[in-house]
Amino acid sequence: MEAKQMEPLFEVAQLAHVELITPKPEASLWFFRDLLGLEVTETVGQSVYLRAYEDFYHHTLKLTEGPTPRLGHVAWRTTSPAALERRVKAIEAAGLGRGWIDGDHGHGPAYQFVTPDGHPMELLWEVDYYEAPADKQSKLLNRPSKRPLRGVPVRRLDHVNLLAERVEPNKDFLVQVLGFRVREYIELNNGTWAGVWLSVSPLVHEIAFMRDAQGARGRLHHICYWYGFPQDVANLADALREHDITIEAGPGKHGISQAYFMYVFEPGGNRVELFGDPGYLIFDPDWKPVKWTEDVLDKGIIWWGGELPAEYFRYGTPPVKEEAAAVKKEEEEAL
Amino acid sequence: MEAKQMEPLFEVAQLAHVELITPKPEASLWFFRDLLGLEVTETVGQSVYLRAYEDFYHHTLKLTEGPTPRLGHVAWRTTSPAALERRVKAIEAAGLGRGWIDGDHGHGPAYQFVTPDGHPMELLWEVDYYEAPADKQSKLLNRPSKRPLRGVPVRRLDHVNLLAERVEPNKDFLVQVLGFRVREYIELNNGTWAGVWLSVSPLVHEIAFMRDAQGARGRLHHICYWYGFPQDVANLADALREHDITIEAGPGKHGISQAYFMYVFEPGGNRVELFGDPGYLIFDPDWKPVKWTEDVLDKGIIWWGGELPAEYFRYGTPPVKEEAAAVKKEEEEAL
Amino acid sequence: MEAKQMEPLFEVAQLAHVELITPKPEASLWFFRDLLGLEVTETVGQSVYLRAYEDFYHHTLKLTEGPTPRLGHVAWRTTSPAALERRVKAIEAAGLGRGWIDGDHGHGPAYQFVTPDGHPMELLWEVDYYEAPADKQSKLLNRPSKRPLRGVPVRRLDHVNLLAERVEPNKDFLVQVLGFRVREYIELNNGTWAGVWLSVSPLVHEIAFMRDAQGARGRLHHICYWYGFPQDVANLADALREHDITIEAGPGKHGISQAYFMYVFEPGGNRVELFGDPGYLIFDPDWKPVKWTEDVLDKGIIWWGGELPAEYFRYGTPPVKEEAAAVKKEEEEAL
Amino acid sequence: MEAKQMEPLFEVAQLAHVELITPKPEASLWFFRDLLGLEVTETVGQSVYLRAYEDFYHHTLKLTEGPTPRLGHVAWRTTSPAALERRVKAIEAAGLGRGWIDGDHGHGPAYQFVTPDGHPMELLWEVDYYEAPADKQSKLLNRPSKRPLRGVPVRRLDHVNLLAERVEPNKDFLVQVLGFRVREYIELNNGTWAGVWLSVSPLVHEIAFMRDAQGARGRLHHICYWYGFPQDVANLADALREHDITIEAGPGKHGISQAYFMYVFEPGGNRVELFGDPGYLIFDPDWKPVKWTEDVLDKGIIWWGGELPAEYFRYGTPPVKEEAAAVKKEEEEAL
Repeated sequence: MEAKQMEPLFEVAQLAHVELITPKPEASLWFFRDLLGLEVTETVGQSVYLRAYEDFYHHTLKLTEGPTPRLGHVAWRTTSPAALERRVKAIEAAGLGRGWIDGDHGHGPAYQFVTPDGHPMELLWEVDYYEAPADKQSKLLNRPSKRPLRGVPVRRLDHVNLLAERVEPNKDFLVQVLGFRVREYIELNNGTWAGVWLSVSPLVHEIAFMRDAQGARGRLHHICYWYGFPQDVANLADALREHDITIEAGPGKHGISQAYFMYVFEPGGNRVELFGDPGYLIFDPDWKPVKWTEDVLDKGIIWWGGELPAEYFRYGTPPVKEEAAAVKKEEEEAL
Repeated sequence: MEAKQMEPLFEVAQLAHVELITPKPEASLWFFRDLLGLEVTETVGQSVYLRAYEDFYHHTLKLTEGPTPRLGHVAWRTTSPAALERRVKAIEAAGLGRGWIDGDHGHGPAYQFVTPDGHPMELLWEVDYYEAPADKQSKLLNRPSKRPLRGVPVRRLDHVNLLAERVEPNKDFLVQVLGFRVREYIELNNGTWAGVWLSVSPLVHEIAFMRDAQGARGRLHHICYWYGFPQDVANLADALREHDITIEAGPGKHGISQAYFMYVFEPGGNRVELFGDPGYLIFDPDWKPVKWTEDVLDKGIIWWGGELPAEYFRYGTPPVKEEAAAVKKEEEEAL
Repeated sequence: MEAKQMEPLFEVAQLAHVELITPKPEASLWFFRDLLGLEVTETVGQSVYLRAYEDFYHHTLKLTEGPTPRLGHVAWRTTSPAALERRVKAIEAAGLGRGWIDGDHGHGPAYQFVTPDGHPMELLWEVDYYEAPADKQSKLLNRPSKRPLRGVPVRRLDHVNLLAERVEPNKDFLVQVLGFRVREYIELNNGTWAGVWLSVSPLVHEIAFMRDAQGARGRLHHICYWYGFPQDVANLADALREHDITIEAGPGKHGISQAYFMYVFEPGGNRVELFGDPGYLIFDPDWKPVKWTEDVLDKGIIWWGGELPAEYFRYGTPPVKEEAAAVKKEEEEAL
Repeated sequence: MEAKQMEPLFEVAQLAHVELITPKPEASLWFFRDLLGLEVTETVGQSVYLRAYEDFYHHTLKLTEGPTPRLGHVAWRTTSPAALERRVKAIEAAGLGRGWIDGDHGHGPAYQFVTPDGHPMELLWEVDYYEAPADKQSKLLNRPSKRPLRGVPVRRLDHVNLLAERVEPNKDFLVQVLGFRVREYIELNNGTWAGVWLSVSPLVHEIAFMRDAQGARGRLHHICYWYGFPQDVANLADALREHDITIEAGPGKHGISQAYFMYVFEPGGNRVELFGDPGYLIFDPDWKPVKWTEDVLDKGIIWWGGELPAEYFRYGTPPVKEEAAAVKKEEEEAL
């Protein structure tokens, strides 16, 4: 048993929620509520709090009105109150801490910080559990509310995928300071990383970083909700086409993470992935990260099914100037 | 934050493998290899070592010839070498240790112990990773071997379900000594537990205990391999019916664990479950165990789909005398 | 080429619609509209006209208030106006005609007749095609309206299954007078038929007759709407359980017709089947009917999945006296 | 009722079988037998006869060695012996008859003819039904043989898609002489047809014609086998990628015909489609053909899922000179 066998960290438990900023709050709300079947748990000021029917807490999505589509913040729950304290110290030591807030609707005190690339994040322990009103209570005791009879309902928040000017420092931060494990990554011929998938659980990722082709910082590539069943993605694809929501790519099967994916744009402009099968799970405590190199990358990006368009590798939110201009031009031409 | 918020244990990582004893080794091998699509990695003496195409180690099933169908042993892998040392001490302190063995084909030193009910188990760290020969290497770098073109191939070992004279002491042992978390349980009107589902990961269970209706000790209810896709279970059900393998129950959906289940008997007499959907996952680090009581138990046992026959709650391996006699009589009448 | 090769009849094209009588019109409407996703096209007096989103005509279900659950009538469309005239003459010659009506909402003149067992039927040619309002128009030109975002929407009407005092005369009438082909049947040891499945298309059946175990005449066993996808049936099963709709049997797979079935009771008391996969299709113009005998019938009734309860073979609508009494008692006990 | 209501023809019953010519007979056989799970029923000279496990006759695919990949012939079965005689006369009158052959392995006398574009076809009545040997007999009496435990077995032959210099004359021939019905078609802005889908059954098509972009005559676009279940296509896609079979497009969902498609090249160079869901069925005896025009054609070609590459609209078999040259160059570069 070699020296490398350090004791692993088990301090971050899960992705707790995500905040998205949208310039079209009503249309975005319609998308998440009427098509994806999320439930609104609270509306406060310019924000709407939503959850999928298998999300156990108050919300997994905070949808906030703002001038530009972008990530509001990502919140992680620790494995214990003590773990929260220890991780806050480690973040402070890394110089990326921003300080405590008292909490928000749905959770208690949270410590704010940023990734090396500047993505706003929070770490917290105290959460409010969702309590379904009588008409939404499920007869399944392990389900926090009935599966809605509206749209094609997603089951739970799955992961976030962020763009970064450079992948490696963000990976290092998550691994060393927060205890994430690298599951898969793309190493280019020049030795730099083009993408990395990390998790604190058997999921292949709760978070991924991909290199921002625009060279920008702190942008969002997508958030992902989970179905688990391919047919539900097919049913949603049908609904999206009927209701003029753009499907950017898929349904199809990634090699990396083995996810059955579909990427769409919510009306506010943020990319949303729908994850349609179980993928694979990693229980091996000594997992050797899977390295994808350029010569085999095609099978990693697409195992089978639809291709990813060029924009997939360029567009993020907030859009950089050229993107915003291109989108505006496209909209004008569509008139 | 109350005193109950002790630091959780993260010392056991996963179910590593299971050994089954079968009195009909050839027929059992045919079942696992030709119908379930497992691959044989090694044959040694009276034992055959097999793995599913997404199992990363040398084997997840050791199939050993013996006079009576039963559990050989269950092996768990720890999260680190140090965790192994700590857990061995804890088991010794609990008085259930049996001592170290040098290892077996496919893994290094293992510490043997028993549950309070007498089920043989092992704890280990060192494992041999499966290395596929050229013709079985997958083009998916995160898959240890190609999906076979034989039978309806299962993806990975999922869990074991054990019968116990009393559920509670076995639950206590797993929770206190090994760090398992109780996910769901059945509490009867008389206050005793009829079943418990525990895990060390977001899976609802890697292990369950159900009260042995025969009052016997140390018996196996079933082992379970995982598909993740309902259609694969349908395809297997078709094959089982064509090839005269008894489907005891399902496909159907449990409320408890939300598993899409099918229970069958391998030719040696052990019960095998095929898990056909993703179920649900528990990421909440502060999970409150779900209690099923008698008044709502029907929905817990079957959410929808086929019923469980009376034998499901009585038959385990090794069969108790009456069961063995009943089986023998049935076989004679079938001639 | 033998004399048996008579020219086949191609005169009846399809099952056009079904009328159900329900004593609980509001609850029945909720079931068909909110759970099965049917659309209401018209409401007239005590009747509501509904269609599934892939039904091309004005309606496939006429739901009419009445004191007792039962079949209102079954309507068939011919392959041409001339075929309608010829079949009317043949029915008249068989002594089962009842005469013409001017039509109903959604269709033109129809000729009313009864089966030998007394089930009310109609034959017609002129139908009104459904014209979707703008917000329901599908972008798929071959789809008469959008897939609704409500409930788990069925796709189209599939078949009817009728109980009869004796199966054979009804089969003879359909075959000889209307040109149906026998696809499968059950012949008991005593030489009588217990069930028959007939069609005028590659579907295994648009109609089936099963012997009425109560010895009654003219009763309905069930009507069936079609999904084609097993996952949709799973999703509906979940919704039914949450909303206290009784699932009588399934999901499971019949051997006869190879249908993936689920049987439920709409709130009015009529049995409804949801057909969840494509089954198999018969294109052979010289099909030899498949005979199921008692020794192999178990595999015909259930290929795999849930069993059929005893009531499946006894309960029909209108309920006979004992059934009605049993149901009433059950309801009282449930209070 | 207008004059247009002529009596419809019901003379052709079904697509009986297809012959493919392959320059790589062993590799093609491996593809159809080991991946698609077809069974070999007979091998004679340079031909192998195969069937899917739900095909009722001796074969649906005759695979014959030849210098160039192409269609051998397409065979149709009539609805009766008398219908065969009548259709032969009609074909002769149309000047496209080639004369009778005594038969082939698996069927009796057949009348050979060509489409206006020159595709070789046969019309026949007498067929040999497949009789499974004991080990392949299914316990499902309506299934001609067990579902194989090899590869991802397709269920039955579904349709053929042919390229033609001009679509309209071929459509006219099939409609007027053989009684096919036009189900859907593409009309370009210049008034010509780019494609047409026709059937004699509720299937949207047993045959389609698409305009040959190369201006060639008598070529094959693809043959199609049917699964009916999307998951089976996913499982096959996985196997194809592992075994280096090119997936040209899909899985994805066409708008036209609503087929869940995947297009692949068998090793001999012929395109094969796998049809993965039930599509929709047409029971309306007075069906108005669905017209797709250029402004909405994108949704007709792809409703959702992967795009069709440019080659899809150009490549057929036998390849025209440039195509053959391009393929050869690609192969050389791959060395």
